[in-house]
Amino acid sequence: MSKPAAKRFPAPAIDQLPDDIRTRLLAVQEKSGFVPNVFLGLAYRPDEFRAFFAYHDALMEKDGGLTKAEREMIVVATSGANQCQYCVVAHGAILRIRARDPHLADQVAINYRKADITPRQKAMLDFALKVSLSAQTVGEVDYAELRAHGFSEDDAWDIGAIAAFFALSNRLANMASMRPNDEFYLMGRLPKSG
Amino acid sequence: MSKPAAKRFPAPAIDQLPDDIRTRLLAVQEKSGFVPNVFLGLAYRPDEFRAFFAYHDALMEKDGGLTKAEREMIVVATSGANQCQYCVVAHGAILRIRARDPHLADQVAINYRKADITPRQKAMLDFALKVSLSAQTVGEVDYAELRAHGFSEDDAWDIGAIAAFFALSNRLANMASMRPNDEFYLMGRLPKSG
Amino acid sequence: MSKPAAKRFPAPAIDQLPDDIRTRLLAVQEKSGFVPNVFLGLAYRPDEFRAFFAYHDALMEKDGGLTKAEREMIVVATSGANQCQYCVVAHGAILRIRARDPHLADQVAINYRKADITPRQKAMLDFALKVSLSAQTVGEVDYAELRAHGFSEDDAWDIGAIAAFFALSNRLANMASMRPNDEFYLMGRLPKSG
Amino acid sequence: MSKPAAKRFPAPAIDQLPDDIRTRLLAVQEKSGFVPNVFLGLAYRPDEFRAFFAYHDALMEKDGGLTKAEREMIVVATSGANQCQYCVVAHGAILRIRARDPHLADQVAINYRKADITPRQKAMLDFALKVSLSAQTVGEVDYAELRAHGFSEDDAWDIGAIAAFFALSNRLANMASMRPNDEFYLMGRLPKSG
Amino acid sequence: MSKPAAKRFPAPAIDQLPDDIRTRLLAVQEKSGFVPNVFLGLAYRPDEFRAFFAYHDALMEKDGGLTKAEREMIVVATSGANQCQYCVVAHGAILRIRARDPHLADQVAINYRKADITPRQKAMLDFALKVSLSAQTVGEVDYAELRAHGFSEDDAWDIGAIAAFFALSNRLANMASMRPNDEFYLMGRLPKSG
Amino acid sequence: MSKPAAKRFPAPAIDQLPDDIRTRLLAVQEKSGFVPNVFLGLAYRPDEFRAFFAYHDALMEKDGGLTKAEREMIVVATSGANQCQYCVVAHGAILRIRARDPHLADQVAINYRKADITPRQKAMLDFALKVSLSAQTVGEVDYAELRAHGFSEDDAWDIGAIAAFFALSNRLANMASMRPNDEFYLMGRLPKSG
Repeated sequence: MSKPAAKRFPAPAIDQLPDDIRTRLLAVQEKSGFVPNVFLGLAYRPDEFRAFFAYHDALMEKDGGLTKAEREMIVVATSGANQCQYCVVAHGAILRIRARDPHLADQVAINYRKADITPRQKAMLDFALKVSLSAQTVGEVDYAELRAHGFSEDDAWDIGAIAAFFALSNRLANMASMRPNDEFYLMGRLPKSG
Repeated sequence: MSKPAAKRFPAPAIDQLPDDIRTRLLAVQEKSGFVPNVFLGLAYRPDEFRAFFAYHDALMEKDGGLTKAEREMIVVATSGANQCQYCVVAHGAILRIRARDPHLADQVAINYRKADITPRQKAMLDFALKVSLSAQTVGEVDYAELRAHGFSEDDAWDIGAIAAFFALSNRLANMASMRPNDEFYLMGRLPKSG
Repeated sequence: MSKPAAKRFPAPAIDQLPDDIRTRLLAVQEKSGFVPNVFLGLAYRPDEFRAFFAYHDALMEKDGGLTKAEREMIVVATSGANQCQYCVVAHGAILRIRARDPHLADQVAINYRKADITPRQKAMLDFALKVSLSAQTVGEVDYAELRAHGFSEDDAWDIGAIAAFFALSNRLANMASMRPNDEFYLMGRLPKSG
Repeated sequence: MSKPAAKRFPAPAIDQLPDDIRTRLLAVQEKSGFVPNVFLGLAYRPDEFRAFFAYHDALMEKDGGLTKAEREMIVVATSGANQCQYCVVAHGAILRIRARDPHLADQVAINYRKADITPRQKAMLDFALKVSLSAQTVGEVDYAELRAHGFSEDDAWDIGAIAAFFALSNRLANMASMRPNDEFYLMGRLPKSG
Repeated sequence: MSKPAAKRFPAPAIDQLPDDIRTRLLAVQEKSGFVPNVFLGLAYRPDEFRAFFAYHDALMEKDGGLTKAEREMIVVATSGANQCQYCVVAHGAILRIRARDPHLADQVAINYRKADITPRQKAMLDFALKVSLSAQTVGEVDYAELRAHGFSEDDAWDIGAIAAFFALSNRLANMASMRPNDEFYLMGRLPKSG
Repeated sequence: MSKPAAKRFPAPAIDQLPDDIRTRLLAVQEKSGFVPNVFLGLAYRPDEFRAFFAYHDALMEKDGGLTKAEREMIVVATSGANQCQYCVVAHGAILRIRARDPHLADQVAINYRKADITPRQKAMLDFALKVSLSAQTVGEVDYAELRAHGFSEDDAWDIGAIAAFFALSNRLANMASMRPNDEFYLMGRLPKSG
């Protein structure tokens, strides 16, 4: 792998990582066939790495009022608004796979208002974008809009917290000029890859 | 073709179009295998259609200081900034093909500052984005920066004029909720498709 | 004529222009008494010149749901928002003449919300400004507002397309530092000039 | 005078004004031939009227490093940026007269960067616009730029204070929907009116 | 007093000030125990000083539909939005004292939407912030909202005029890098200091 | 404690919390004399709570090129820009204590450019604010500026990562309308409390 994980802040060699982090990287590699660069980029700071992925998994790896594909839609839409190349390309791939739809991620990343989504998903993304771009103005009227589309209070927290977490993630990736692995670009685009 | 070319403003039936427009559509279809929706969407207004494509071809279908791939990079970068789904997806496909690079378009659409491009191309896109987003502030210092990267006055016009033309195009496509054809999403992404 | 048509990109000498362009310039000169600088500035690129004016005429030189004065109001309001000196001064003159009103253009250029216009014209300019400044957010609610003021679908296209076309025009004029001809400033301001 | 001075907040009848205010209005009327609407609009609040015009005169009616025309250029440029119809039209008239130039005001109101002004005046307006639009970011580098163009510390205060005062004035006029008197539109535009 | 009143534009020595200004400064010092730096900073220009404080007192030192504490809330909220350190710290102190509340000023300065205020006060600040940040868009709908919360036309003027006056004041203080006196930071924060 | 920790999303009763979280809350209460509301507000989601505080401690509770007071300066400056009431009030208190300075927090929250800080700290906050507000534009020139002020690559990561983490934190607090505990407002303001 000749291309670096990020243009700044060198990734440590895998064999010099703490055991728990190396184990996680190897597990991801076994499952996906490659190590996504965010794992290498954040391994620069082991404690932050652990907290980051614990937070990520707490928000993204669960069921509930939002499907896993919908959670990824929030990631892709807010990361597009924040112009985060790593997050749009990597989570765009995951969204294609989870939604079994080869076109949705590109639509949502560029302009979710024009995407082929339901009115309920449009309301979900309206809220997520407001948290992402002007959380200081979020108020009761925004929660009422979510309720009107059938979202529970717990769902509202999920939507907002995912948007908030990727506000962090987008900034880290942009600050480090993290580069999406080449593998992501094509994932989920071909009929059999869904 | 069950999906409409645009969510608003119905596209006329091809057999009811003026001869010259129908001929152009059929030629595109023969060459590409499908009719890009912008041709159908703009056929709603034949005179505007003719002027639009004449303008497009005058800027995009020529050689000179900018390669055709570089012209498409300007389209993709400014269309991303304007959140134009149709233009990013359709011209992203063309950029992949013209640059023979399956990753460049996604990078440029999301954040050209992090894309794998040359400093000269970065300067080109800095100028294009300034014309696209705040042309009222363009001044001599911007032209000097282009010259420092080897661009001629003619090149400067080309860069700015392409950015300006797609300021028009992005607005039309967003206003009409024009949808990218399904064919574009995968074009230029597979090794043999370049 | 000692002042240049634009501060950048020299205008070609009239006798070196292609025949059709020279003929159009002479016709304009005969009708208006002078050649507006946009004709000279764009003659730098004959093919773009032809497409530009064909597009312009297709949108501006016709009747329909919008009067010609209303079409110019859209030009002046959006050009003011884009800080385009050439377009505000030149089309301000045309608006004064077409509306037979010496004050309207200045009002609309600075703040159309405070201008002496009808609620219907205010809705027209709200839509035009939204297309000009944030077309990515245009949606059904905006079209519904137009319908509520009696505009047809065709009118909606006209309003949006004029705003989109002058998004192009404003950027070209700012990029080239095109200067309004001195003649425009006073046109339509005196009682007899209407 | 059938048109109101402002669309909101009724102007008191002249004969019911406090003596000092009525006297000032009559003096202005005698000198100008009409009473500018800002005098009527602010007479709604006599104490604020007195303070407003005392402040105005302290900044605008004096000589020093800036000519009176240059002071008006600051007013027109910042009022254009704040989309204040009353201030642009009324002070545009005064600028035309003081600069003996029929074109300058329209240029400065729309885009001072493209106006026919000196580099020193451009630096003056750069500083004024920064105070008007983002005073929180003004710093030593901005003062250094003024000094490099020959402005004294006193001049710097004048430029900034005029911009600051019209930040107030623009907001009052927009809030009250104050309308420019018809007389202003043509003032200073004809050869003999200078 | 070793710290200067402002980082730019030296304050004159008190004994060299005009009599009326020195008298006012001494009166403030007697009442407050110190001379707020805005008095020293503006004394650089005696005529502007007089107009400034006359305007200030006309808006702030009166009763009516708004309490004096509410007037200060407008100052603190708009000064926070304009990032004016002097105005937030100094008027924050006055707000704490006038409202007999040690927490309100910090809440309002940072995000009034989350402050412990009434819906009527929230509407008041919505209007004030709109005048402060985008007065060009203020319209009848905004006045209707004020009326719905029981504000009179006179109250509306007060709210808007205070916001407009501090648009001026914030810009002056930022331009001069005026520093809040140390005394302000603690005023009104202790139980007995109210 | 009659006031809720946040206006939305009820905090669980302390005795119903998981053991590790309850233990942490009690430890904080013992040390500080009260439980900061962020602990109660985030306890709504135990897994997110654990990740949040692990991340927080990894960034804030360490020495290195940045002092702990400087780390808090980054929090307060970026939280002010994001209008986060909880973070500005709570971390303002911590900053006052860590810097042993009763005035610094208010200055930095409102406008760090005017605060009594060193040029090195100003550069640190310039970078932090850029990551917070437009991370997509961060580039080599920004890192060079940090280096010129003596910051190492590790320091750069710290500055950016703290800004990024509080981009998350600010959004959560605003989304939940988290309220600062009354205790924070006065902490570190009195001579003996430092």
